[in-house]
Amino acid sequence: MTSGTARVRVRYAETDRMGVVYYANYLVWFEVGRAEWMRALGTTYRALEAEGVQLPVIEARCQYLRPGRYDDDLEIRVEARLLSPARVRFDYQVMRPADHARLAAGHTEHAVTNTAGRPRRLPGPVRSLFE
Amino acid sequence: MTSGTARVRVRYAETDRMGVVYYANYLVWFEVGRAEWMRALGTTYRALEAEGVQLPVIEARCQYLRPGRYDDDLEIRVEARLLSPARVRFDYQVMRPADHARLAAGHTEHAVTNTAGRPRRLPGPVRSLFE
Amino acid sequence: MTSGTARVRVRYAETDRMGVVYYANYLVWFEVGRAEWMRALGTTYRALEAEGVQLPVIEARCQYLRPGRYDDDLEIRVEARLLSPARVRFDYQVMRPADHARLAAGHTEHAVTNTAGRPRRLPGPVRSLFE
Amino acid sequence: MTSGTARVRVRYAETDRMGVVYYANYLVWFEVGRAEWMRALGTTYRALEAEGVQLPVIEARCQYLRPGRYDDDLEIRVEARLLSPARVRFDYQVMRPADHARLAAGHTEHAVTNTAGRPRRLPGPVRSLFE
Repeated sequence: MTSGTARVRVRYAETDRMGVVYYANYLVWFEVGRAEWMRALGTTYRALEAEGVQLPVIEARCQYLRPGRYDDDLEIRVEARLLSPARVRFDYQVMRPADHARLAAGHTEHAVTNTAGRPRRLPGPVRSLFE
Repeated sequence: MTSGTARVRVRYAETDRMGVVYYANYLVWFEVGRAEWMRALGTTYRALEAEGVQLPVIEARCQYLRPGRYDDDLEIRVEARLLSPARVRFDYQVMRPADHARLAAGHTEHAVTNTAGRPRRLPGPVRSLFE
Repeated sequence: MTSGTARVRVRYAETDRMGVVYYANYLVWFEVGRAEWMRALGTTYRALEAEGVQLPVIEARCQYLRPGRYDDDLEIRVEARLLSPARVRFDYQVMRPADHARLAAGHTEHAVTNTAGRPRRLPGPVRSLFE
Repeated sequence: MTSGTARVRVRYAETDRMGVVYYANYLVWFEVGRAEWMRALGTTYRALEAEGVQLPVIEARCQYLRPGRYDDDLEIRVEARLLSPARVRFDYQVMRPADHARLAAGHTEHAVTNTAGRPRRLPGPVRSLFE
């Protein structure tokens, strides 16, 4: 298991008329979180795709604990885990450092496929990022 | 438990560079599904909010079974359930009638609050929609 | 010049904390409008892409006249025009039939390219859709 | 006239199946640009709204010069201008520093309203940000 963090600033576009962040946007921030996790380890998801590897999401879950608001500065905490040579999992926590609030917690699971969508194994160097 | 359906046509905006629907959009369609479920029962979520009742999402989950594609005509099947006087749950299935494929399955759980975000009970007439 | 219409129902996801539709979403509805314009004429943008033709947007403009609100049932009116063999334009009006309000007016201009992004001419049958 | 910049990293969610950034997202980045312009000048749009001032968009335009791609690190350049005591304009350029490409150029115009949507004048301290 390895971990990382990312920062996002809540956009007006991400709020809804309840005055808080619309719930689907947390999944977008999860994506930002795992991209920055990978960048911090020295590679990028873009580079991974260029090598013919994709990580389509097969399951996502999110628990909403406290509402996020416009312009909040948020920290996405990520933990990455290899479930099998062809399946990975990320766990996320969305924190608001200003008041130490935890806004959300969730996870995603991903298959490992080639660019045609066929299952394949993670290349060794990528696999090592998870360990 | 009561049920309903909604139709959505996949927008270009909802696809990503993998050529398929971006995963967070299924949660948007879940929202469309529960709105149409309520409309079919003779009221609307807009009317509910006008009465001072909100149903913020406290948990969402989605399993991604097959990719949706641009311009797909999809059916969102919804089942609504009262978990308690102050908590409701919706279960969803996203179907593609053209090839009888099930693209996704998931659920959301919602608190019942007033417009200030304080817990409250569902009004009787709304409660009866779930039964 | 040919014309068409599409209907959209405002989603909660499309509102913002000002309580109205977030401005970028009108461009998404413009996309829905031109897709339905093409469908009404007997083909689809998906089919067009399958033939190797893309219509990337090179300019978009929108004037916001009155705010759209959650659950509004809107009509997107579309007029399509050939500017040259390799350039097309769509003009849009977003109407709310319930109160005959015009919420927005705008246009998009599109290049005609192959799937590699190189300029090409519209195929004859597609060209005739605009005339 | 005053100016500022913001940085955005292209999210997977923001791409479409053409493999490039979906056109409506540039308007979201314009929003990020004007928010960061204001922050750099010592206040925030959130604070402005808390004082009872809103800046709803009344017109938006964008020219798309070169496609943005997933994971691109982009710079949003912003120029702010007072058109009248009750109307402001922002001009934007979206640059990709890695190859000095200009991806898009556009502008937005905004009314100045109170939180009920009625026209009002900009408060003096905010007005001075534009001059």
